[in-house]
Amino acid sequence: MTPEFKFDFERGARIGLDEAVFCQGKTVDQISAIVDAVKAKTGRLLLTRLEPSKYEVLFARHGEQLDFDPLSRTAILGQPHGALLAPPVALVMAGTADLPVGREAARTLAFAGQAFREYVDVGVAGLWRLLERMDEIRSFPVVIVAAGADAALVSVVGGLVSSAVIALPTSVGYGVATGGAAALHASLASCAPGISVVNIDNGYGAACAALRISRVVAALQKSGEGVD
Amino acid sequence: MTPEFKFDFERGARIGLDEAVFCQGKTVDQISAIVDAVKAKTGRLLLTRLEPSKYEVLFARHGEQLDFDPLSRTAILGQPHGALLAPPVALVMAGTADLPVGREAARTLAFAGQAFREYVDVGVAGLWRLLERMDEIRSFPVVIVAAGADAALVSVVGGLVSSAVIALPTSVGYGVATGGAAALHASLASCAPGISVVNIDNGYGAACAALRISRVVAALQKSGEGVD
Amino acid sequence: MTPEFKFDFERGARIGLDEAVFCQGKTVDQISAIVDAVKAKTGRLLLTRLEPSKYEVLFARHGEQLDFDPLSRTAILGQPHGALLAPPVALVMAGTADLPVGREAARTLAFAGQAFREYVDVGVAGLWRLLERMDEIRSFPVVIVAAGADAALVSVVGGLVSSAVIALPTSVGYGVATGGAAALHASLASCAPGISVVNIDNGYGAACAALRISRVVAALQKSGEGVD
Amino acid sequence: MTPEFKFDFERGARIGLDEAVFCQGKTVDQISAIVDAVKAKTGRLLLTRLEPSKYEVLFARHGEQLDFDPLSRTAILGQPHGALLAPPVALVMAGTADLPVGREAARTLAFAGQAFREYVDVGVAGLWRLLERMDEIRSFPVVIVAAGADAALVSVVGGLVSSAVIALPTSVGYGVATGGAAALHASLASCAPGISVVNIDNGYGAACAALRISRVVAALQKSGEGVD
Amino acid sequence: MTPEFKFDFERGARIGLDEAVFCQGKTVDQISAIVDAVKAKTGRLLLTRLEPSKYEVLFARHGEQLDFDPLSRTAILGQPHGALLAPPVALVMAGTADLPVGREAARTLAFAGQAFREYVDVGVAGLWRLLERMDEIRSFPVVIVAAGADAALVSVVGGLVSSAVIALPTSVGYGVATGGAAALHASLASCAPGISVVNIDNGYGAACAALRISRVVAALQKSGEGVD
Amino acid sequence: MTPEFKFDFERGARIGLDEAVFCQGKTVDQISAIVDAVKAKTGRLLLTRLEPSKYEVLFARHGEQLDFDPLSRTAILGQPHGALLAPPVALVMAGTADLPVGREAARTLAFAGQAFREYVDVGVAGLWRLLERMDEIRSFPVVIVAAGADAALVSVVGGLVSSAVIALPTSVGYGVATGGAAALHASLASCAPGISVVNIDNGYGAACAALRISRVVAALQKSGEGVD
Amino acid sequence: MTPEFKFDFERGARIGLDEAVFCQGKTVDQISAIVDAVKAKTGRLLLTRLEPSKYEVLFARHGEQLDFDPLSRTAILGQPHGALLAPPVALVMAGTADLPVGREAARTLAFAGQAFREYVDVGVAGLWRLLERMDEIRSFPVVIVAAGADAALVSVVGGLVSSAVIALPTSVGYGVATGGAAALHASLASCAPGISVVNIDNGYGAACAALRISRVVAALQKSGEGVD
Amino acid sequence: MTPEFKFDFERGARIGLDEAVFCQGKTVDQISAIVDAVKAKTGRLLLTRLEPSKYEVLFARHGEQLDFDPLSRTAILGQPHGALLAPPVALVMAGTADLPVGREAARTLAFAGQAFREYVDVGVAGLWRLLERMDEIRSFPVVIVAAGADAALVSVVGGLVSSAVIALPTSVGYGVATGGAAALHASLASCAPGISVVNIDNGYGAACAALRISRVVAALQKSGEGVD
Repeated sequence: MTPEFKFDFERGARIGLDEAVFCQGKTVDQISAIVDAVKAKTGRLLLTRLEPSKYEVLFARHGEQLDFDPLSRTAILGQPHGALLAPPVALVMAGTADLPVGREAARTLAFAGQAFREYVDVGVAGLWRLLERMDEIRSFPVVIVAAGADAALVSVVGGLVSSAVIALPTSVGYGVATGGAAALHASLASCAPGISVVNIDNGYGAACAALRISRVVAALQKSGEGVD
Repeated sequence: MTPEFKFDFERGARIGLDEAVFCQGKTVDQISAIVDAVKAKTGRLLLTRLEPSKYEVLFARHGEQLDFDPLSRTAILGQPHGALLAPPVALVMAGTADLPVGREAARTLAFAGQAFREYVDVGVAGLWRLLERMDEIRSFPVVIVAAGADAALVSVVGGLVSSAVIALPTSVGYGVATGGAAALHASLASCAPGISVVNIDNGYGAACAALRISRVVAALQKSGEGVD
Repeated sequence: MTPEFKFDFERGARIGLDEAVFCQGKTVDQISAIVDAVKAKTGRLLLTRLEPSKYEVLFARHGEQLDFDPLSRTAILGQPHGALLAPPVALVMAGTADLPVGREAARTLAFAGQAFREYVDVGVAGLWRLLERMDEIRSFPVVIVAAGADAALVSVVGGLVSSAVIALPTSVGYGVATGGAAALHASLASCAPGISVVNIDNGYGAACAALRISRVVAALQKSGEGVD
Repeated sequence: MTPEFKFDFERGARIGLDEAVFCQGKTVDQISAIVDAVKAKTGRLLLTRLEPSKYEVLFARHGEQLDFDPLSRTAILGQPHGALLAPPVALVMAGTADLPVGREAARTLAFAGQAFREYVDVGVAGLWRLLERMDEIRSFPVVIVAAGADAALVSVVGGLVSSAVIALPTSVGYGVATGGAAALHASLASCAPGISVVNIDNGYGAACAALRISRVVAALQKSGEGVD
Repeated sequence: MTPEFKFDFERGARIGLDEAVFCQGKTVDQISAIVDAVKAKTGRLLLTRLEPSKYEVLFARHGEQLDFDPLSRTAILGQPHGALLAPPVALVMAGTADLPVGREAARTLAFAGQAFREYVDVGVAGLWRLLERMDEIRSFPVVIVAAGADAALVSVVGGLVSSAVIALPTSVGYGVATGGAAALHASLASCAPGISVVNIDNGYGAACAALRISRVVAALQKSGEGVD
Repeated sequence: MTPEFKFDFERGARIGLDEAVFCQGKTVDQISAIVDAVKAKTGRLLLTRLEPSKYEVLFARHGEQLDFDPLSRTAILGQPHGALLAPPVALVMAGTADLPVGREAARTLAFAGQAFREYVDVGVAGLWRLLERMDEIRSFPVVIVAAGADAALVSVVGGLVSSAVIALPTSVGYGVATGGAAALHASLASCAPGISVVNIDNGYGAACAALRISRVVAALQKSGEGVD
Repeated sequence: MTPEFKFDFERGARIGLDEAVFCQGKTVDQISAIVDAVKAKTGRLLLTRLEPSKYEVLFARHGEQLDFDPLSRTAILGQPHGALLAPPVALVMAGTADLPVGREAARTLAFAGQAFREYVDVGVAGLWRLLERMDEIRSFPVVIVAAGADAALVSVVGGLVSSAVIALPTSVGYGVATGGAAALHASLASCAPGISVVNIDNGYGAACAALRISRVVAALQKSGEGVD
Repeated sequence: MTPEFKFDFERGARIGLDEAVFCQGKTVDQISAIVDAVKAKTGRLLLTRLEPSKYEVLFARHGEQLDFDPLSRTAILGQPHGALLAPPVALVMAGTADLPVGREAARTLAFAGQAFREYVDVGVAGLWRLLERMDEIRSFPVVIVAAGADAALVSVVGGLVSSAVIALPTSVGYGVATGGAAALHASLASCAPGISVVNIDNGYGAACAALRISRVVAALQKSGEGVD
């Protein structure tokens, strides 16, 4: 049989984002082999959608080297960058049930050395909770909004800030909200202009989208180009 | 062939709402025959989803007796009740494009002699437009919220008022919003508790739901029952 | 890491409905922390979608203080209001399999101190079971109808009463009824006018919609306003 | 190019139902060629989904030989059987808007020489209209129920008769009822046992399903077989 | 709390089909209480969708009185009728994986005392298996066809027999066939005219539809009516 | 503004299939500009989904050079190859209404100089029509099966031939068959193994898939490779 | 009746994007009234989804003041900003049929004074067309990719550039691609990390998302903040 | 009760593909009985979708005779053909998570004695991995492409090779990619012409489609027919 994976070590150089390992649908043996390959090369790796039961086996093989977070089901091999990179990102979450997805985004940002701040439980059912933090949130150049069900928070935030807004719909909910399609569609159909959206529960992707913007800003500032 | 309709003249007595004629899918001859039958009996009728081209033929047959509104595609035969019935209903519409559906609700309320007030173009993309009218809206015991696309207005209003809230999703929009399913699902999955929802573009139904509540209140007040 | 929740203690004052905790997708630690916070403040809380396995852990921490009902998967902290609030609500359920959802509505009404009465197993497959109770049901100002599969009961009741009718579709069923979309769509498309609908299996929401109406009535009666 | 059709003249002998021509998606030339072929052979043909604009061209070519009904968009070539065949079929229609589909079923039954009776506008929103005819309907061995939107009539009839019941969902409606899926799903998920269902708007198919049963009964009665 | 069920003992007299108990979504206590109630009255009951784990508890309470079949997940209380009722029903199944659903139909027919015969594994992928039994199948007045995935068997049988044909789509399959919608839609859209369809996996319903026809035939034969 | 197209003239050399122009969604000016560009280069072009109204304008500009077929809405610029290429392809169509899509495939094959033969109106509702031609069809190495609605023909043919079978689902039909999803899903879920499927109404694509196989066979035969 | 709109003149100051008028679902009278209101205030307005037939009426009322583009169905009132704003945006379109949507984005960017460049007809079916322009595209900090059908271009571009990538799915296509859901889902599920997506055919929204990023960059460069 | 299966031993002779046993939805007893029947006849069998837990029971009954592969959940009874059959097939897989499905195809090809080669982890997110193997892949007459999520690999390969291309969408993914519909639709809507597609996760079917082509080539080469 042929070898079972071919790692994209050059991705970081090519697009500025290191390859991460999406563990769902992979066997523990496959994941462990990837970890070994990465250890032998760069020593830094992010693993997403890692079930605790798989982590336990990996722990037995790789010990303390993997920093595992059960809420977001992510593990990190190696250290994040020392200094935090600006411009900072705001990570706004509608409710406690959006935390697992939001935390996946947070861990991805942290692994990339990106400065960010979390705002939790600010859904529009209690609008005051959002409004009292709005001035602060408005100051971030990039805002990720994680919300499930009706995702009304996405539109409210999008109508109040001039920043780049990335909607992160979550699969929280039941009935018509099951699986997150209601949140996804409400985000895509938002009445606030210029919001862009990632796949349901894709915390990793929302963070990467924020990183692409952040990297662009940093690059332009260093080069001094692009100023009108 | 058998006769083609059997009118439910007793509906008003039975459930407090007169039968209306849903004209979509009916021929002009069928509609005209119903109008004739009603003229001979009660003399009062609401027609919904009446295309202007059909109205023109009806006008030739029934003349000035039909009060037609092209925006909402409704026609009214006979006069509304003289005195307006309380408690009043607030009819809140997110955008101009929601007007045809909202106006169908308004015409239904007017035909039933129900007091109401319209609030137009208060979608959350410009939240200030809503907030500056919120104290007024909050004072209505029953609030209908007509909104398409993300229907975020439904959740924001639902989180700010203690009134009975009826969401009226509209089919305004394109892409994932086409046909109104996104607005419907966001309304059903609203994070604000206790919102109930009618079918997409069902202005008539939203008004009837408001009338059922209004009638209940009026009946209880007259009887003096139900006070704890 | 940031704190994981921010409770909306003011919701009761703002919209007349206390915040409840939706436990699905939350960890036991998160739920327990919320219970602790509420104990320290108001001492009254409703928990919905609480799996028995989670309840067992909560029981170990909070003891007899939580009144748990396994059928509806709800738990109540603190006592309901002493006197039952009028006007009363009828809670009509099509079949035994609709009981878990219907009971969630019942527990929500009970927690809020709302007077109500349950009618079980009156689906239209045996129409006589419904018709022999119809005079009684008709006397309630607000009627919740819980039904799955074809939800025909919603339309039959809606055509026979003048009360406010709230449809509560349930996910009972298989094949095309799986997940409750058939019941939801039949309820929204009901031939009986003025029925409003909540999300599938949303017993809590149906009860809150009834409470909004009931509160409105009570408020108007106290103020003496709104009589024509 | 090859010839464009191959008519199934033997169908009547094989399964007891003559082939009909479904005109949607066929050009007038193709339809006219089929009519010519049938004239030369059996002289009897049913055409369904025939748009009036196409009929006008056919009329110019085939004159009075085609009996066209614009409401059901059907045309009949040749005469129906003289004596009406028993057992009779009841054709129950919820509303006026279901007439085009119901009439397609009626014309198919008539063309086949089948005895039947129509019941119009007996939807459950006004349950009394149905109940006052129920004893009569109950006496038919086969009952077709045409209904759109919530199709609640299907379940109510199915729960009250012991006859064979064929549900014929129609595409009447808007919002979630658009296209008839809500009516189809409600019919398939009916709480009344033993109802079988045909495709949306398939009046021809519902009539054929009734004819299959009717033919079976007639055949068994002639043979004297099958009695226990 | 109110009692949790109200059994429809009169259903057999009213529509000729005894009420069966659909066990999915019911607790064992609820099912057991129904069994007790039936024992005290008619002593005959069919239970469907009964999981083996629930049966084990019922067995402990009701002993040998329940005849359980794990493949179809049905249990029968009491004896079937002694003499088998004509006319007989053919039960045609496409593949082995359709057996659980087909057997639910078989058990329902057997419980009702209906004569029937099973044909297994005659899917059209090996058309010869069907064609060599076709003459036999053609002789049955009523034919149930159980098939999943493409359900092509439904159309092939429907085009070859003049009997009443009831399609029973099953949820066998994966990918686009998951859950049975592909089989359902292919059955409803069958090119063979006059096929009627029941819900996915509804073996009980298909049997009831066959019983309705069978009962009608038997009744007409006894009365001698209906012959032209 | 930038130029509006960039033609892929090298496609023929790269993958053996010339680029065709999909005209839906393009303006007549855009199409005409492409025709001009092709005339100046290779002189051969296939246009698909060309509405007659657009063709009329093109005819005024390009005269007799475009060979237009209104049934398939295709136009051909330039001559097909002289000698017909083997191995031949069978093009099997279920009904007359599948002809527009089937003819698009036929025209694509003809333009490419591919030998093929059409079989029309052989749907399984009249199985004899198919079976009497089956020996002939079986002799073609590649078989395209165009069918809408239940697409049962796909499975029946697939179970009877050892050739490569390409299913071409069509959007013919109404109700659940609307748009062709039922035919697509039945084809994908076919019980006959090894059938591959193209998009709904994609006659061009089915022909290209056949051409890819035909080209491969021809190439291998010339090279003499690939024999075991 | 109440006034029919309330313009959000403050939107530009609040979120950096002027309000545009979405004309679909609005009457010409409503649009004209908005144009009048804007003329009296800021004199600058973008109209989207403006059908040519509506434009003709507006032209009669507002003359040359509206710059109309029929391909993108947009009209512009007033002049764009003089100097083009950096950093520049790349607007990549898969095929000619994506031009109407892409051009809506282009017109929105131009109206806002944003520098940008278009790349047309670079779909992956002819990968060389994209690869030969890739070095150039890679140099833009923000890249919009408009693609319909399979939207494979989105993933290929996303895997080759480190810029911020905004996917703009279009409704080009037929069969499973109808309406653009296939393109939307493929974009959201892209294997390239960090791509964010706007609603189907939402050229205006994609441009606004690009403008949000561009504005952030410009603001940070002016302030000198955000550099690590 | 009737016997529960009827094996299609003649399938190999009829269509060149031996019947395989799809184990999902079959009991272990049913599978074991089929294995026994095959042992007594041809001694060669492929089992697909065989859960490890079922395999363990089969192992106890049939011992070493079954060659089981847990990754693809396939088991093989008997030996593959000795010599490998040409022309060879390329099996291209986008990512490690597509391996279970790809391996099912590989095992099917191996069981049939078909020469093939696997290419793993060549998804377009890292396009270089594909391009550096493209010359090699291009040389195979038949190419299977297994990909989930956006399935962009299908279009890229389809645009670069002239071989017959069979797309094998997999259910890998989450959010909108859940269950594989996004990959299926992107494959069907591919911008590369002439790609044909099998059901989601149908590795067995993709291999069979390749075998049909391979068999055709071999047959034509032997007969010497079909050369132009």
